Amino acid sequence: MYDYALCVNRIPVGVLGASGYAGRELCGLIARHPGFALAFATANEQRGERLRVGTSDITFMASDNAPLGEASIVFCALPHGTSAAWVARARDAGCKVVDLSSDLRPGNGGTLRAAYGMPELGDATRCAIRSADVVANPGCYPTSVLLAVAPLVAAGLVADDATIIANSASGVSGAGNSPKRELLFAEVADDFRAYGVGNTHRHVAEMRATINALGSGAEILFTPHLLPVARGILTTLTIPLTEFVADPLQPYREAYGSEPFVEVTQDQPALRDVLRRNVVRVSAVMATGTRRPTAIVTSALDNLVKGAAGQAVQNANLMSGFDECIGLPA
Amino acid sequence: MYDYALCVNRIPVGVLGASGYAGRELCGLIARHPGFALAFATANEQRGERLRVGTSDITFMASDNAPLGEASIVFCALPHGTSAAWVARARDAGCKVVDLSSDLRPGNGGTLRAAYGMPELGDATRCAIRSADVVANPGCYPTSVLLAVAPLVAAGLVADDATIIANSASGVSGAGNSPKRELLFAEVADDFRAYGVGNTHRHVAEMRATINALGSGAEILFTPHLLPVARGILTTLTIPLTEFVADPLQPYREAYGSEPFVEVTQDQPALRDVLRRNVVRVSAVMATGTRRPTAIVTSALDNLVKGAAGQAVQNANLMSGFDECIGLPA
Amino acid sequence: MYDYALCVNRIPVGVLGASGYAGRELCGLIARHPGFALAFATANEQRGERLRVGTSDITFMASDNAPLGEASIVFCALPHGTSAAWVARARDAGCKVVDLSSDLRPGNGGTLRAAYGMPELGDATRCAIRSADVVANPGCYPTSVLLAVAPLVAAGLVADDATIIANSASGVSGAGNSPKRELLFAEVADDFRAYGVGNTHRHVAEMRATINALGSGAEILFTPHLLPVARGILTTLTIPLTEFVADPLQPYREAYGSEPFVEVTQDQPALRDVLRRNVVRVSAVMATGTRRPTAIVTSALDNLVKGAAGQAVQNANLMSGFDECIGLPA
Amino acid sequence: MYDYALCVNRIPVGVLGASGYAGRELCGLIARHPGFALAFATANEQRGERLRVGTSDITFMASDNAPLGEASIVFCALPHGTSAAWVARARDAGCKVVDLSSDLRPGNGGTLRAAYGMPELGDATRCAIRSADVVANPGCYPTSVLLAVAPLVAAGLVADDATIIANSASGVSGAGNSPKRELLFAEVADDFRAYGVGNTHRHVAEMRATINALGSGAEILFTPHLLPVARGILTTLTIPLTEFVADPLQPYREAYGSEPFVEVTQDQPALRDVLRRNVVRVSAVMATGTRRPTAIVTSALDNLVKGAAGQAVQNANLMSGFDECIGLPA
Repeated sequence: MYDYALCVNRIPVGVLGASGYAGRELCGLIARHPGFALAFATANEQRGERLRVGTSDITFMASDNAPLGEASIVFCALPHGTSAAWVARARDAGCKVVDLSSDLRPGNGGTLRAAYGMPELGDATRCAIRSADVVANPGCYPTSVLLAVAPLVAAGLVADDATIIANSASGVSGAGNSPKRELLFAEVADDFRAYGVGNTHRHVAEMRATINALGSGAEILFTPHLLPVARGILTTLTIPLTEFVADPLQPYREAYGSEPFVEVTQDQPALRDVLRRNVVRVSAVMATGTRRPTAIVTSALDNLVKGAAGQAVQNANLMSGFDECIGLPA
Repeated sequence: MYDYALCVNRIPVGVLGASGYAGRELCGLIARHPGFALAFATANEQRGERLRVGTSDITFMASDNAPLGEASIVFCALPHGTSAAWVARARDAGCKVVDLSSDLRPGNGGTLRAAYGMPELGDATRCAIRSADVVANPGCYPTSVLLAVAPLVAAGLVADDATIIANSASGVSGAGNSPKRELLFAEVADDFRAYGVGNTHRHVAEMRATINALGSGAEILFTPHLLPVARGILTTLTIPLTEFVADPLQPYREAYGSEPFVEVTQDQPALRDVLRRNVVRVSAVMATGTRRPTAIVTSALDNLVKGAAGQAVQNANLMSGFDECIGLPA
Repeated sequence: MYDYALCVNRIPVGVLGASGYAGRELCGLIARHPGFALAFATANEQRGERLRVGTSDITFMASDNAPLGEASIVFCALPHGTSAAWVARARDAGCKVVDLSSDLRPGNGGTLRAAYGMPELGDATRCAIRSADVVANPGCYPTSVLLAVAPLVAAGLVADDATIIANSASGVSGAGNSPKRELLFAEVADDFRAYGVGNTHRHVAEMRATINALGSGAEILFTPHLLPVARGILTTLTIPLTEFVADPLQPYREAYGSEPFVEVTQDQPALRDVLRRNVVRVSAVMATGTRRPTAIVTSALDNLVKGAAGQAVQNANLMSGFDECIGLPA
Repeated sequence: MYDYALCVNRIPVGVLGASGYAGRELCGLIARHPGFALAFATANEQRGERLRVGTSDITFMASDNAPLGEASIVFCALPHGTSAAWVARARDAGCKVVDLSSDLRPGNGGTLRAAYGMPELGDATRCAIRSADVVANPGCYPTSVLLAVAPLVAAGLVADDATIIANSASGVSGAGNSPKRELLFAEVADDFRAYGVGNTHRHVAEMRATINALGSGAEILFTPHLLPVARGILTTLTIPLTEFVADPLQPYREAYGSEPFVEVTQDQPALRDVLRRNVVRVSAVMATGTRRPTAIVTSALDNLVKGAAGQAVQNANLMSGFDECIGLPA
């Protein structure tokens, strides 16, 4: 199945910003990856600390000490706003880069050219990733929203004047591991609430720009919520269609029939089906009793895997000429 | 504050179906209520078992043994479908009834005449409850949806061709305490999923009929979700408005300014704000970046209190001529 | 039941350190207390912020601005080590003080004289509290341990050379609400671990000194654990006895027969039985198959109520000549 | 690393009782195992239902239809009491058996001869497993207790008159997935309690017999607790030693230095370190302030992996002449 010859000469990769939840997940995936070897991992605030990954320990170093030249690919998991500069630095050192921040994503006005790292959007996207020097790894919410929207757009079922309503609920790891009072266990336990209400979340621009790039004029209205679980995102979308569709799963089966990391299911997607796996699970149902034909689409993913580190490795696999699936838990 | 003279001659009340979560909550509220005294509590499957309420124990009896004649008011917390017959029986015995099932609710085609027990819908509703012999206690989801919708309808802001999208997430107690595999802790923990997708939940009829009764032709599209918490419902509504509204909280303040059990807040309502309290908390924000003016309204309540037992006691207070608030945790 | 004349002239009380979990709980209890009125609440880091308690808001002020002279009783909920100085300041201003820190507790070498605020230890203790100017409110773990140990000591069942093994598990609120990475939801969820292993927890001295003060030479070996719940402490004690006891609950019934805040039960105490209530629930079972007669005693309490704020109000009730129970959820 | 030649001719294995949590975990491990292929999986109550394991589906059949003759090894995950008969049936059909019930374990008086499947107890045990036709897979609690006790016994540090106090806390999956009211999410959430108090748990006999078989006269006093998490067991042991030991981890390093599935750590073991991994993590600390030298030993494991299905596969690996580690997440 795997090409174990890969193991002989693993590609050296580095992780900038390895102490956050996405960074740690990345280090774990790289440690188990047959084609990559971890050259370095940086974490300024936690430099000197050690992280157990697989059967060995790694020690975080300061970003300024990162031996960029020793890595062929650099994963940049730094905070939004500070990432773009490091992407440029890594490029100057001759590295290819997968950037997990929002800095270079569609709609975020980056000046660096980056391919958008959502291979399942189609052949053109996947091709662009394969030949890219820099890939903007998609946001967790946009991944859950866009992979649920794209097949209906591709099938011509979404009118240009449609408003897509997306309600997402995310586990707390999505908010990062910087110590904040509102993220303490005793604050989040037994609670649930919306935030970023009114279409104000940073990820809306990425969703909007990508829906546009798909050729649709539909607009998005996105409301995220904070779930009392550690990981996972479930998104529920209400999408008015141009016509009634007898089998709303059909466009998804067509779009994703050969995709290894999308599962189209009759059953409602649930967080537990996708945790620690690099997959999006998606389902669709036609609403009854509405004047206009409307699909209720639901999607589930692990925000740290398919929503961040797993998708980043998937992109790095493509950029390295590897089988897209190696080293990824599906 | 309270009229403690009430205590001298408490009104005897009975609970049919006292072993479910709503029934137990009811028994607890009644035990602490200054104007009611528990005459009996039935639970067929658990007959003979004891329940600690406040400082004393009650013993569940079989429904057939319930001394209906000894109660002035009967709370009927039996399963949907089996409740209406017991309401009739209690009426025959001369009792007033608050029915917590869906049997007599709007849109559920009951043949018994019942007032709809949501006092905050306005003076007419509250008046009808005061003089009613039978009150249909609203469903938990409809309470969270309708109290969030009504003020906008009253303000003339919801067009008749509007589609109101309501996404709710409920704690597991909402599914009752009959042992089912899918409700086991090890199944629900760390999970989140939608159910009843496609506008098929039993409560949709109640929402639809009530929105209609409010004089609106708007339609509802409702998707419930199962939260990994014991109690609480958060509902997020997307409501297209006829015009842009500078302060979307204003209609809520007008409608609920003197309501003791509705809290209109700038902050996003959260489950923890409402747990074990007989309140609905509601907020509203105008969406940015949409073609049509759209409000995002969020509401939170405790499904066992304002969503069931607390609202039932509130209704019984009105039916008894008591202050609406006595015995209720606000 | 209550003396409602109290309400007319409520006793003004202040809270130093009101933003922590115990401080917030205290403010909530005081807001609902018929005999106390909140004169001020301080919180240096969160000064200016508002806290909703009951139906009104309070605003935190800096400690240095606290009008100590306006309060008859001051609750001191400041961090360990910084509290004693404030107790002295409040005493100088003529206030009685209930100190929730460990500074003045038995075994902690305080120089101020303070009564130990665990009324259920017996008449002498309760008397001392009634007439005290300063009460050292017990720690949460010591309350759960000592109320489980004392009746067996009083009955002469614990040998002086016995080692009492106490294993406790506490909800996360016990660690306070300062933002720390290890207390984040995503770190604590699904986890359980011991800490302070080897009898090194700060509370051991308080337990040891109090067991000694009860006249016993028995030693204690205490291991706390962190539970993935917001509140509650369950303690499991293994206590070798001098003789076999047919009914190990008997000493507890004798000691606590008339105590309003201790529940002696045949059933195993569980966190849910005690949450948000000012009670300790305790049970005891003789072990089978051991060479030496050994009791397994278990106790449960809410660390923020009977383990902190509730017990503090109970002590303040005694110091004020009130019924011990007023204003407390039992 | 792995011998991939194994894959060519996988050994057919069957699972009796595949619908429980341990059975499902087993099916998942077998699906990913390079040397085993699943021949059948039975589940009487859920026969006909399908379980997704890895990339394929399996369908549960009735036990009576199990083609025992097609399997070389049968895993028996049936309820205690009903398992032994099926072990005999599988033996008659020529299968080797790993029995996950307590029926054949030490102290449970089985008449069938079975090796005790805890390889880390030492060379003799591991040898016996290698050549056994029937292996009694240890209980989850006994695994967590005995692997924490054995090294101290081997080092001669536990006196024959010692009482070992073991307090364990287990996730809810340990109670199985039969629908019971007390295991519902809404019952277990936010709760914690002891059960089987007084040394009465079924697993005590297994612990006692094994400690005896290790040559020690020490007795055990075991108290389990129910944790509000899905999986994991943490055990805290208090073990009086014959002498003070400067480094209590030393006996563990000696016993487990080359064990792939035991991790001896300075840090306190935590559930999250071991979830979904076939490991026991163990640590030890000397208590301060006790008259007699006493070690506090803590161990953590995943009750469904090292405490059940993982250990069963580990045993089957040994019985098959495979590397002990293949197919197991460490």
